[in-house]
Order: sequence, then structure tokens, then C-alpha cells
Amino acid sequence: MDTDVYPKSADQIESWDFEADVVIAGYGIAGAAAAVEAASTGSDVLVVERTGGWGGAAAMAGGFIYMGGGTPLQKACGFDDSVDNMAAFLNVAMGPGADANRVGDYCAGSVDHFDWLVRCGVPFKPVFWGEPGWEPPGDEGLMFTGGENAFPFNTIAKPAPRGHIPQMANKRAGEASAGYMLMKPLVDTATSLGVRAVYDIHASSLVVQSDGRVAGLIARQYGKPLAIRARRGVVLASGSFAYNDAMLAQYAPRLVGRPAASIEQHDGQAIRMAQALGADLAHMDATEVAFLVDPQQTVRGILVNGRGQRYVPEDMYSGRIGQLTLYHQDDTAYLIIDGEAHEEANAATSATPFLKRPATWVCDSVAELESEIGLPAGTLQATVSAYNDSAARGEDPLLHKKPEWLKPIGTPVGAIDLRGSCAGFTLGGLKTSLDSEVLHVSGEAIPGLYAAGRCTAGVAAWGYASGISLGDGSFYGRRAGRTAAKG
Amino acid sequence: MDTDVYPKSADQIESWDFEADVVIAGYGIAGAAAAVEAASTGSDVLVVERTGGWGGAAAMAGGFIYMGGGTPLQKACGFDDSVDNMAAFLNVAMGPGADANRVGDYCAGSVDHFDWLVRCGVPFKPVFWGEPGWEPPGDEGLMFTGGENAFPFNTIAKPAPRGHIPQMANKRAGEASAGYMLMKPLVDTATSLGVRAVYDIHASSLVVQSDGRVAGLIARQYGKPLAIRARRGVVLASGSFAYNDAMLAQYAPRLVGRPAASIEQHDGQAIRMAQALGADLAHMDATEVAFLVDPQQTVRGILVNGRGQRYVPEDMYSGRIGQLTLYHQDDTAYLIIDGEAHEEANAATSATPFLKRPATWVCDSVAELESEIGLPAGTLQATVSAYNDSAARGEDPLLHKKPEWLKPIGTPVGAIDLRGSCAGFTLGGLKTSLDSEVLHVSGEAIPGLYAAGRCTAGVAAWGYASGISLGDGSFYGRRAGRTAAKG
Repeated sequence: MDTDVYPKSADQIESWDFEADVVIAGYGIAGAAAAVEAASTGSDVLVVERTGGWGGAAAMAGGFIYMGGGTPLQKACGFDDSVDNMAAFLNVAMGPGADANRVGDYCAGSVDHFDWLVRCGVPFKPVFWGEPGWEPPGDEGLMFTGGENAFPFNTIAKPAPRGHIPQMANKRAGEASAGYMLMKPLVDTATSLGVRAVYDIHASSLVVQSDGRVAGLIARQYGKPLAIRARRGVVLASGSFAYNDAMLAQYAPRLVGRPAASIEQHDGQAIRMAQALGADLAHMDATEVAFLVDPQQTVRGILVNGRGQRYVPEDMYSGRIGQLTLYHQDDTAYLIIDGEAHEEANAATSATPFLKRPATWVCDSVAELESEIGLPAGTLQATVSAYNDSAARGEDPLLHKKPEWLKPIGTPVGAIDLRGSCAGFTLGGLKTSLDSEVLHVSGEAIPGLYAAGRCTAGVAAWGYASGISLGDGSFYGRRAGRTAAKG
Repeated sequence: MDTDVYPKSADQIESWDFEADVVIAGYGIAGAAAAVEAASTGSDVLVVERTGGWGGAAAMAGGFIYMGGGTPLQKACGFDDSVDNMAAFLNVAMGPGADANRVGDYCAGSVDHFDWLVRCGVPFKPVFWGEPGWEPPGDEGLMFTGGENAFPFNTIAKPAPRGHIPQMANKRAGEASAGYMLMKPLVDTATSLGVRAVYDIHASSLVVQSDGRVAGLIARQYGKPLAIRARRGVVLASGSFAYNDAMLAQYAPRLVGRPAASIEQHDGQAIRMAQALGADLAHMDATEVAFLVDPQQTVRGILVNGRGQRYVPEDMYSGRIGQLTLYHQDDTAYLIIDGEAHEEANAATSATPFLKRPATWVCDSVAELESEIGLPAGTLQATVSAYNDSAARGEDPLLHKKPEWLKPIGTPVGAIDLRGSCAGFTLGGLKTSLDSEVLHVSGEAIPGLYAAGRCTAGVAAWGYASGISLGDGSFYGRRAGRTAAKG
């Protein structure tokens, strides 16, 4: 039970503990972007943050921001891209369920969004990192992060890398995450514009006027209830529901007990506060999925499911491999990799060497390995034989892994047991307009209520690319700030 | 925009057009069951139905009611079952996301529920139909409807058929559906208990008292607005959102444009009316999926995906094959079947001969067929070769199709193109208590508001078995009627 979640009538508030034109719940990427934009218009802005400091999940993230359409960084690294090309990719890669209007809007504004981040002081180093991996190993600024250069996406749009990464001074020494280097300049910019922030404040419900307009928040600080007045608007920016097991069971049961790339404060409260006012939701089952193995390993082997069948080109974006594995292969995958390829993978540069995994089984023949894993007799042998035959010709007619990664599998041959190697966060949430207004189930905007970031259903529906969450969180966070400031 | 959906204040209603103790929106299976039970307690009951008559989707359905645990019909047909055995099956087959509490509750009450239906006059003929099929061809009363006797379910629980079908006088002449023979006695029972029904009334929003209690409905009849007062409770029983394309796009995008086994009135309005009051939802992405091919064909061939790989035992419940095909195989399947098996399937008795499909391609060899279909070279050949080798031994180590259906595939060999052969209805909806109270996002019941049937999230989460919707619609419809009558 969470009886705090009911909306409160503004008539019943005797005194306000805090007041501002725009009140933002959550000081992660969406909240920071909203704060900068709202304050830029001259509004008085207050951010209430549940933890003891700004940053949210963003500050701990790898820092990818998904942008394209021909950003200066893409150009400096020698890549052509266009708004249409970016949209063609996202409309397929973010679906089924991707909203073409939102995708088009996001792509059309992407170069401008990059420029805005740079104006806020976010640094990007014009160096491309082209190796398979979850992140670049150093301070390289650009990378493929959604399988743009893998089949079938490389036949749908011209491959262009769009994962833009803020530059760190000393990443190899582990000084700070790129996410921190994104958040720090934004928070500094907000502070310089007069944005106030108060911490350890947990928003629990919305305050509503008799005419239906949202007028503030009820929250708790150190157990004490607080009333916070928003003269123009409330922006909800407090993250996903990855840490709310009851909500996961209702909407995304495969993720129960396996949240990742999120923080424990991601309890879905913003979603529920708005639902209590009749807010609409969208694609609540959609999730990002991390696949916890180093891509330098994956690309050098073949992935098979519990029937010994391949199901995805192994040079695909690892997050998509994770989605396909968790949802379509019952969380069951084995990476078949020979000794030489395994050594090569271990020697390859990677930002996540801790995800380089030892072989669970090593055998002298595929037949033995098949038996050790417990796969149905003959299945893995047929799969490897077919793969090897075509790989020797530099082809992969089954799944179109790129020729550079095709090499017959020799002996000794090992397998990495990747069952239960998926984790992730939720992508569904409040349905919003392109101006970041929270929509009622009637289809109308709820007056005075705005939202952005992972408490909303954003650009990604069922698919994902790394950088989409910091991307749409910052992009639509800005919109939320601007729209709320107008009141 | 649907600005009618906002809740209305009871203070603003000047006069009521209709009044009753219990008002039920929708006269399908859930509404009829609620009406009988509410009226049995002596309550004055009014059913408001959007179409011109009672019946809903139920009256047009095949009529399966999923019951077990040792019903008299199961016993008469010679099958053992128990509450625990039924629950063991449903907990796996209805998941991921199945609610073990609800499954346990449903199974524990199942024999009693069967007896209640019989007392209401629903006839069941104690004859079992054991052939593969969507429905029995005649008036047989019992059938497997969820893959209980297929792998892996036959290793999880002792297989027992639980699809109970009301008997028709003259089914082969197409006189009336079994669903009609379920609905007719229930409506007759309700009428005999004094239940009133009014038709062509489309409920659009809820009426709420100042203390939060639901006090009635606002509706339209022939364009004229009506206020309908419920002195004790409102029961929402007006079906799924399979015909609301906007909601499908938000929650179940794979079903957009392909509703099945539902009626156009299934527009999600009950869900949205309750959401406007802060009602909670559950597993909105879950759907039933019909696979539009005759099971007598499916079982005699092998199903392969777009990579030429088998993915499901072909003697599985066809609805589950549909779910796996639509969601996990990108709506792509080909049934590989040789000439002799195809003829045998065509000669086999079936309730759905119109779903017996001609071969799209027929060839003299599997290699030719593979090329005709456009499958990657070698894939189908390897799949058929492996299947034939083990089938000749009476085994299916890959997917465990039962030995009775294992026979090597000979020539001529054909394929039925089953791409785009999936359709279905939605299973997600309002979150309710086991007493059919509609739950607020706070976790508390919304006073005076009850719901059952496919506007609620019921027994099925991601999985399904035929008969679950008429089953949980009638079971929790009864609960809704009883709870609402208490007020």
C-alpha cells in the first residue's frame, strides 16, 4: 500500500515549505536539462532530489548520448549522417511500437541538441572508437551503440555511429564516469543560472487545484512532510521503475530481481503519482537489456540458444543481443568459441575487461562440447558445421555477421555459459506530448504537469540503443523545462 | 481526444435516468455471471449493454471454459485432475508474470464453478475429443486446450484436458455457437432473478462522490447522455482493448490491425474510465494469439522460422504456437509437410476445415523447397535431415513432439506460407483484487468499483489456454457481482 500517492487538494495546503515557478523532481539528466532551460527563460527553478546529491543514474552511466543527423562530432570523425538516415534507423531499431512522430522530432533536433550540450560545457573529443565493446576504452568521443553497422540495420540505413561520449580527463585511471562529465557541466550551468536544489526530498504525490491544474508536490524530507508550490509547473524527472518489484511483476516480469544501469531510487513513484491523476502510460513492457559478456568475446564466437541454434549476428549491438536472448530465447545462450579466438578476445582492448569470461566447458571436439553443455544430440554439430562451411567462404547466409568476424571454429573448442546473463532497466512510463506535457487518458495534457527521462515512454519502444536514455532524457527534459516555464 | 472519460462528480448530477443497487456495464460472460450472483443476493441489478443485445464476444466464441481440478465432466471422461495439478500447469503456462495467488484461487474454486454453471443450466456432454484442433467438431464436451499434453507442460503436470464446452443441439448444422449455449442459460437465469437489461447504452465515464466512492455511470444512448445511479456498486465488464488501435500501439503494438475473437465494441473504454480515477493496470502487453492454420495440418509437418529452424513442438496448443511465432519469430513461419501428410491432414476430422490451407510451394526435394521459400542455403535441408533421422527412431530430441506424430518427411514436399497468420486479443487490463475490486495505484480498492473479464488482467499473463477468458470472466464476474451486492 502507498496511500501517500493520492493527489492532494491545493485548498488543503495551509502553508508551503518551498515555492518556485518551476519545480523539478529529480536531478538526473532529465531534471538537469529541464532546470537549465527553465532557468534560461528567467524562471525561478527549484530541483528536489531524493538522494543526497545531483547526478541520478546518469552520473554513473557510461555517458552515451544518442545523437546524429550530421553532428560536428560525426563530421570531425569522418562520418556522413542525415536526419532522414537517423530516423530510418531508429524507426526500425526502436520498434515494434516506435512512435515515428517522436523519432522524427528527436532526429530533426539532434544537431541543435549537440550544440546546446557543447554550449553548456560538455566536452567531446573528436576521435572514433571502432572496436566491438560496451564503451570506448579511453576518452574517445564517438562509437556505434545500436547495431547501426550490423545486419539488418546496415541494409536499412547507412551506418553512422551516434553514441556521443563526453570526454574525461583521465578515464583509464578510473577518475570519473563519462556520465559525470555530462552531468557536471549541466548542473554547473543550472547553478550559474540561479537554479536552487534541495536534497534528500522524496516526492510522494501531486497537489492539484480545483480546476485540475497541478500546483505542486507533497514530499518528505527526513520523514517530515513538505508542501512544495510550483507557480507554473511541475516536471517529473525521477527515473524508471526498475527497482519496483511489484510494478515489474505487473509490466515487465522478466526483469524482476535483475535491475541494471539504474539506481535504487528508480521506484516508479513519478509514474504512480501521475497515474493517480489519470495520466496515460505507454509500452510498459519495454526494457533495455544488458548482456553481461564482453563484446570482444561475443563477436569472435557463435551464440546458440538452448536448441543449439544461432539466432543473432554476433557483431550486433550487445543490448539487442540481450533483448533477443532474455525475451526470445528464454534467457538461454551459450557462446561457442575456440581456443585461439578466446585468446585473441582476451588480448583485445576493451573498456569492460571484467566482462571477459572464462570458458565454462572446453573440449577437443564439438560433439563432446554439445554433450557437455547438454544440447540435443547433433544440434550444435550441425550449427558449427554449417557456420564453418560458410565462414570459410567469408559468408554468413544465416545471419549476416560481417566478413571481418567470420572464421571457422577450430579446436580446442569452448563454451561460455551465458544463461542468466541479462539485466536491465525499464523503458515504459508516462505518455507525454512532444512538448513533454503529461497526457491524461482523455488525450488532453494535464495542466501544469510535465515529465521527461525514464519515467516517460520515450524514443525507444521495444528496441534500444545505448545513449537513447541520456539522449531523450536531455532532449525532452529541455522541452519540459521550456514548456513548464511558460506555465 | 476522449474528453467524455473524465470522472463526473455525483454532486453535479441533477437527475438519474436509471437506478439500481448494482449496475453492470457489459452483458458478455463477465457481466452475465456478475448479474446472476448479484441478483441471487436479492439486489436490484441493471445491466447496460452497448450493443443491441446480450452476448458480447462470448456468444460468438467457441465456448471453451477452462476448468479442472477434478470436475464431474473430467471424471466422466476418465481423467484424473487435482487443484494442485491444475495450478502447477497454469503457473507455468500462463507466465511469465502469472500471479500464483490468483492461479491458486482460480483452481481451488474450479469444481464449484463447474457445478454453478450446471445449476444455471449450462449443458455439458461427457465425451472427450482427443484430436488436434481448435475446437471439437461436434458436441463433445471436453478437450485439451492449452498444450497440457505437449512438451514441456507434460513434464510439469499430469496432462488433463480442461477445456469444457457447452453442448449444442445441432452444431454440425451450424445452428449456434457453444458460446451462445453458455450465455443463453446464464442470461435466462439472470432474467428469472429479476435482472433488468437496457441496450444500446455506451458507458463513457464514472460518477464519483466527494468521498471517492463510485456512485454510477455516465453513458450515451442514441447520442443522448444518461446518468445511471448505482446504489451499491458498478461492475465494469465490457471487454478488452483489441479494437482500440491507439491503445494497441501503446501497449501491444504487434496486434495493431489484427484483432481476433473479439468484437468491435472492445475499445478499452472501461479500462480508461477507471484509469481516469487512478486505477492500476497489469501486463498490458500480454495477448492471446490465434494461429490461423488447422492444427491437423500443423501436427503433421514441421514448423520452421525465417532461418529454417524448428522452434516449437508441432503438437503444442496452437495459441501458444501463435504467441511464439508472432512475438519470438517475427511473425514468420513455414509449415513443411509432405504430400502424404498433407492428404492425411485434409482427410482428418476438424472443426475448422476452412483453416486447412493449400501448400504455397510444392517441390521434389527439400533443397528445391528451401530455395523456393528463400531460406538461407542449407538451413532447411539440415533441419529436415535431423528431424527425419530422429523421427525414424520415434524420437524428437530437439523439441519432444510426441512419438505418435513423428514421421520422416518424404517427397513431394510442400510448404505452407504462414507469415502474417497471427491475430488475437489483449489480456492486460485493470488490476483487481481476488474479490474483483478495482485497485487504485495506491494498492487500495476504489470504493464501489468492481471489474471482471477481459477489461481486467486475469489468470493469464504472457501465456494462454483456450477457455481462460470465458473461465476467468465467469469466475471473477461472479465475485464482482457478489462483492458489489454487499456494497
